[in-house]
Amino acid sequence: MIEWLDGGVTAPMGFEAAGAAAGIKYHGRMDMALVYSKAPCVTAGTFTRNVVKAAPVLWDRELVEGGTPGHAVIVNSGIANACTGSEGLEACCITAEAAAAALNIPVDSVYIGSTGVIGMQIPTDRITAGIKLLAESKSASQEAGTLASKAIMTTDTVNKEIACRVQLGGKTVTIGGMCKGSGMIHPNMGTMLCYITTDAAVSQALLQKALSEIVEDTFNMISVDGDTSTNDTLLVLANSLAGNACICEENEDYQILHDALYAICLNLCQRMAADGEGASRLIECRVEGADTKEHAKILAKSVICSNLTKAAVFGKDANWGRVLCALGYSGVDFDPQLVDLFFEAGDESLLIFTDGSAADYSEEKATELLSGDKVVIRAVMHQGKESASAWGCDLTYDYVKINADYRS
Amino acid sequence: MIEWLDGGVTAPMGFEAAGAAAGIKYHGRMDMALVYSKAPCVTAGTFTRNVVKAAPVLWDRELVEGGTPGHAVIVNSGIANACTGSEGLEACCITAEAAAAALNIPVDSVYIGSTGVIGMQIPTDRITAGIKLLAESKSASQEAGTLASKAIMTTDTVNKEIACRVQLGGKTVTIGGMCKGSGMIHPNMGTMLCYITTDAAVSQALLQKALSEIVEDTFNMISVDGDTSTNDTLLVLANSLAGNACICEENEDYQILHDALYAICLNLCQRMAADGEGASRLIECRVEGADTKEHAKILAKSVICSNLTKAAVFGKDANWGRVLCALGYSGVDFDPQLVDLFFEAGDESLLIFTDGSAADYSEEKATELLSGDKVVIRAVMHQGKESASAWGCDLTYDYVKINADYRS
Repeated sequence: MIEWLDGGVTAPMGFEAAGAAAGIKYHGRMDMALVYSKAPCVTAGTFTRNVVKAAPVLWDRELVEGGTPGHAVIVNSGIANACTGSEGLEACCITAEAAAAALNIPVDSVYIGSTGVIGMQIPTDRITAGIKLLAESKSASQEAGTLASKAIMTTDTVNKEIACRVQLGGKTVTIGGMCKGSGMIHPNMGTMLCYITTDAAVSQALLQKALSEIVEDTFNMISVDGDTSTNDTLLVLANSLAGNACICEENEDYQILHDALYAICLNLCQRMAADGEGASRLIECRVEGADTKEHAKILAKSVICSNLTKAAVFGKDANWGRVLCALGYSGVDFDPQLVDLFFEAGDESLLIFTDGSAADYSEEKATELLSGDKVVIRAVMHQGKESASAWGCDLTYDYVKINADYRS
Repeated sequence: MIEWLDGGVTAPMGFEAAGAAAGIKYHGRMDMALVYSKAPCVTAGTFTRNVVKAAPVLWDRELVEGGTPGHAVIVNSGIANACTGSEGLEACCITAEAAAAALNIPVDSVYIGSTGVIGMQIPTDRITAGIKLLAESKSASQEAGTLASKAIMTTDTVNKEIACRVQLGGKTVTIGGMCKGSGMIHPNMGTMLCYITTDAAVSQALLQKALSEIVEDTFNMISVDGDTSTNDTLLVLANSLAGNACICEENEDYQILHDALYAICLNLCQRMAADGEGASRLIECRVEGADTKEHAKILAKSVICSNLTKAAVFGKDANWGRVLCALGYSGVDFDPQLVDLFFEAGDESLLIFTDGSAADYSEEKATELLSGDKVVIRAVMHQGKESASAWGCDLTYDYVKINADYRS
């Protein structure tokens, strides 16, 4: 039973946060965030699969693999610290050392995240000054969590945070999270960053296992523009202050924590897709009746990645041929004659395609279903029993505007 | 030695063509084309790999595989005849029967192509009336070839035809071709159609072999929007009227014909990319020094398919991090530290990225190089000796406009 709460990363016990303006972005906007736990945390993470990895991704991955306790995450927006060579890695060292000194914690307990322009070097003097501001202002208040979630935004139009509570063996365990999506005022590579905190007691191995599984069905099933960032990072910090019996095997408690973590990730990833660069609406593609789960995922992702489908949804155009087409080139084999295609919104469902050709549907009704904040495209393949969902957004003039404007 | 000529599909001996307005498109625009050879042709073809295949693709593929001599191609624009079930296949039969009667040729010598809205049924009465117009007006003139190339256009802004001449054993062999790219006034699935004629004498097996090889390095290396159409078709008709000794083995003549066919395909595919929906400039990505040819192709294609790179080129923004990023998520492994990246236009070349970080380049110069009709992005991987090129176009407001407008 998951109970939803207001707030974000500071909702679990023992977590503090802060946001600050360190002068990395122009116009005095907030551009640095801190998440901190005095109690040591077991930490799980997943990172971009891009061969070109940003310096903070290399830094964090080494820490997660090393398994040393985590205490803090320092994030800057404005500069991605990607494609920055050895100078970029040095910037990570300087950042971690400054945070360790300011917070009185070990250097290898400091995680780092960056998002922004690729190729620019990080101004480390501003970073170290920013860390002092963060350390001085950090707080366990809900507002502090919100400030942190705002400080990591780039072209996001809304900040994204979430928290929930579950019961584990009579103890209340809380999970909080924040994330950001794509873009900048000086637009460049969008970067997905997500930080989740919990006061659950759980082993690192099981926390990583749960996270790796969940990511496959949540964050790895969204796409704004098909471009996999150099900086994508998802970290979970668990400080065990809830006092639950430590989850060290895949028991009932593990399942409860897993489900809560899944719900948090599902919520955040959908909000990230809905707030994709220039997006006017969220698109969900639900594929049912596929022969394998893997095929269901490939089919669903092919539809939400199709530029033509995305542009049609922007135009509220029930141009279902593009959906069929995207299913067809996904690489998964199927019989087009067997596919039933529906457009859905809220409780309404409209059969669009069946028996190999167009169903007798009302274009007016279809346009109405495509006009809301969320559009569901449901494809029933009739090839088996597996299903999957993927989430994306429409392709709009604003997407082009955001990404074509000159950086300077 | 390839000699370029004016003209298109009617340039080779014995080929006639026509274009007509059959009332499939609105406003009396031309929407049907004929390519005809009185002499029987060996025919090679390549077709979409989309699982969802349009009826004319199924029709043509069967004919090419059957190997019966070809005499005519009937193409309509306006309706794609895709996702149309058994009624769509019936429309192909009716079309072929009407053409066979009007041209006095066998039904199984008639190839069919369609491009336009997916899901609508073909009005066969208009098609058969159109075929009569085409048969009456067909001619071997250059103008007739041009009319045919115009009649297959949808949102193409220019018609695309080409012809060249080579010497084979003292005989002059001519090759002509026409193709169309993406989009419609009632925009829908873009479709690539390409028809090439030649008076060369060549066996079907070798013509198909040459074509299949060439397509991998030309048409399969372009992308406008990453969406593989349900209708993509490339046909070559060879009627042997040039009188050269029939090419039945991979001798010197085969190589000359292969090279000429390659040059024709390379020219047409680049013009198709440059005239992609909404495009303002052609992008070529040249990857050199890859470990395998396959990897070079994957890397080059990943760059020209990146929405973020495409939008940056539209904005004349030397946002090279997006290029590195697209190379990085292509699925090919490489060492980012070794990559040299150049922006090029005409004879000018600008080193942008080297030794793992930005080169000391002039942003002004980079913007200048990105401002022409054609931009070359050259990535030298230093992993091996293989190279490949891919071609695409920038992502513009017009692309969104063309594809978001309502169909009706």
